Amino acid sequence: MKYSNFFIPTFRENPSDAKLKSHILMLKSGMIKQETSGIYSWLPLGFKVLKKIIKIIEDTHDSHGINQILMPTIQSSDIWKMSERYDTYGKEMLRIIDRNNKELLYGPTNEEMITSIGKHFIKSYKNLPRYFYHIQSKFRDEIRPRFGVMRAREFLMKDAYSFDKDEKSGELTYENFFKLYLSIFEKLGLKIIPVRAPSGEIGGSLSHEFHLLLETGESKIFIDETFLNSNFSKLKIPEIKSINSFTDELYDSLKISKCLKQLKSTELGHIFLFGEKYSKSFDFKIDYNNEKIYPYMGSYGIGVSRIPAAIIELSNDNNGIIWPKEVAPFEITLINLTSDNVSTKLFCEQLYASLKKSNYDVLLDDRFERPGIKFSDADLIGIPIQIIVGKNFIDKKEINIKTRKDLNETTICSDNIFKFLKKMKV
Amino acid sequence: MKYSNFFIPTFRENPSDAKLKSHILMLKSGMIKQETSGIYSWLPLGFKVLKKIIKIIEDTHDSHGINQILMPTIQSSDIWKMSERYDTYGKEMLRIIDRNNKELLYGPTNEEMITSIGKHFIKSYKNLPRYFYHIQSKFRDEIRPRFGVMRAREFLMKDAYSFDKDEKSGELTYENFFKLYLSIFEKLGLKIIPVRAPSGEIGGSLSHEFHLLLETGESKIFIDETFLNSNFSKLKIPEIKSINSFTDELYDSLKISKCLKQLKSTELGHIFLFGEKYSKSFDFKIDYNNEKIYPYMGSYGIGVSRIPAAIIELSNDNNGIIWPKEVAPFEITLINLTSDNVSTKLFCEQLYASLKKSNYDVLLDDRFERPGIKFSDADLIGIPIQIIVGKNFIDKKEINIKTRKDLNETTICSDNIFKFLKKMKV
Repeated sequence: MKYSNFFIPTFRENPSDAKLKSHILMLKSGMIKQETSGIYSWLPLGFKVLKKIIKIIEDTHDSHGINQILMPTIQSSDIWKMSERYDTYGKEMLRIIDRNNKELLYGPTNEEMITSIGKHFIKSYKNLPRYFYHIQSKFRDEIRPRFGVMRAREFLMKDAYSFDKDEKSGELTYENFFKLYLSIFEKLGLKIIPVRAPSGEIGGSLSHEFHLLLETGESKIFIDETFLNSNFSKLKIPEIKSINSFTDELYDSLKISKCLKQLKSTELGHIFLFGEKYSKSFDFKIDYNNEKIYPYMGSYGIGVSRIPAAIIELSNDNNGIIWPKEVAPFEITLINLTSDNVSTKLFCEQLYASLKKSNYDVLLDDRFERPGIKFSDADLIGIPIQIIVGKNFIDKKEINIKTRKDLNETTICSDNIFKFLKKMKV
Repeated sequence: MKYSNFFIPTFRENPSDAKLKSHILMLKSGMIKQETSGIYSWLPLGFKVLKKIIKIIEDTHDSHGINQILMPTIQSSDIWKMSERYDTYGKEMLRIIDRNNKELLYGPTNEEMITSIGKHFIKSYKNLPRYFYHIQSKFRDEIRPRFGVMRAREFLMKDAYSFDKDEKSGELTYENFFKLYLSIFEKLGLKIIPVRAPSGEIGGSLSHEFHLLLETGESKIFIDETFLNSNFSKLKIPEIKSINSFTDELYDSLKISKCLKQLKSTELGHIFLFGEKYSKSFDFKIDYNNEKIYPYMGSYGIGVSRIPAAIIELSNDNNGIIWPKEVAPFEITLINLTSDNVSTKLFCEQLYASLKKSNYDVLLDDRFERPGIKFSDADLIGIPIQIIVGKNFIDKKEINIKTRKDLNETTICSDNIFKFLKKMKV
């Protein structure tokens, strides 16, 4: 991609209305724009990051036999009356009256709808287990939306749902999703702590949240420090059930006396095994050995559009964002400091073409801007590797390679660029 | 993908509440489920088709330097008051009051929002031209939603927007989008007729719709038959402006006396060059050679979630859907008629693995169902090539290849399968 053709409207000044580092940097780097309170547009750079994250989540779900679907954003109030959540959900639910005076709502989550889908299609235990996921906009009318996409009203959620024939099979599914979540966050380059959580208004007995430790996080979790060193991905359901780390809400309600360390964090995922709660309220029964049983269900959410902000919150410096390579919008930015010079222009165009041919995702800064602006934009948008071409190339065929993370710069002969990149494991 | 692990809930009986062939077949083949009037879920098979269509649309836009973004579904009424469309849009706009009594709405289109984005970020003609697109849910509260996803209330639209410095440059952009649309529909395997259209409530002077000829279509277009044989993709802006084919609305309002052929069709795309209409109402001015000018804008829509239905409407027989290979959910279905036989099971598993390794997108029907059910499901869901493995394989190592389109069946030796597929150009 050429910078001249990819819209990244960066700002020099800090926005006046943002306090959280990630919020400031996402606005400054032209990743997002607020449209109204708690509602954002994702601009080209932001959306490219979001798509990379979505692809990791999709690939991991697909490879585990979870079928992707797309449920609508707008739901009928009917199904929420069946689960009795229409009244209890409160003011966070965005309620809508259509032109025929029918009560609709913007889905804050989809347990009701997936249960009605299950009831419509699944008639026998032979159809089970079944797992579905979708990535769809949700709306929760937060009283105080804040921190940019970290706590937005309209946001992208990945929510998965499972149908099993009984509790035992449901718990195995829950264990598999638990591990699936750990592997997704690992692929995103994030060290995540699973903690036991209350089931809240979703219902059920078994629930865990997946937290990222963050000084600036809005959540508090209580952690058994010995647990931090264990390999979560080896845990089986009995150990998962008895994890000795908790959300603050559960910690308080369980009146836990054990001395645990309190840390600040941000919630990125939440899973629930709620069993027969919704299948019962929908009278969703299936055949099972001449009996009728209620399918055993669970739901599994990831706050997709919150992830870019969480990563930035964790990975930045005074100059801007530092993208880990897993989710970086581009792997390399190739900066031509002298766009009006024929020889650097030719070299950059050729290098850009060969890098693309070698499957590198490259942003070529071909703009007619001062070097200072190109340097500060490159540091601000945080692409992991900068290849800098300027006066030294004209004089001595030398170019510089700068790693965004440590700002280290190495001068190399331009002929050695591919060898050097390979050595860097880009 | 294995059928046992991919949820395709087919029905034997026709649904009672659907009349249009595509609607009937999408329900029977388990592609979609109605959630409430005009609002649908896309099930695994349906969503896989939708994703293939989305990928073609994305790739074509990306390769033409149009930047993908994601604007939210929910918009503030403020921007619609600036364009004066808040009052005129009428009852099709889904209006919402949030918990703070602020007027919101579910976006039926995004001209207002993209103009406010442009005004926020674009300050000089040097930033122009700029092109953006997003693929996002829209809501239009149709008084009589019908025909399944063909005329739904919540639907997926691809909408692109352009900013140019003047009319001349805007018209060139319009010409490029006109050609881009022809190439997208060509890649989708659809023969599309561009017709001149009124600009309606979007505004502006130049507008075209892209229609698919369909006996069952809801639209009427008037066509100059000599025009049908011309190469649309060679047209330049003067010819595009004077195309001698019209939507019925424009045909009536222009009182065209020329004898044109009237045909039924379905609208799949609509483009508008509305010039300064929104930049003026948003007072969005930019610097241009010491002057202030209003950017010249256009918008370009494709009804994404309507496309699968349109294709089915065009391509089906009494047995079910006939997918053109461009958008087929899978390229091949491998049908094991004797799932309980060790040798066919082994052969099918091995063939499935080698087909996947050779990058074929295959659905292996590994279910324990009667052959009759497998045959009728295969014809119903319409995958282009069926490889049928049964008794003949056990006896003589022979398998059958059936093409869904003409139901032709050929018996071949199982060793020759790859050679045969290559000859068929699958």
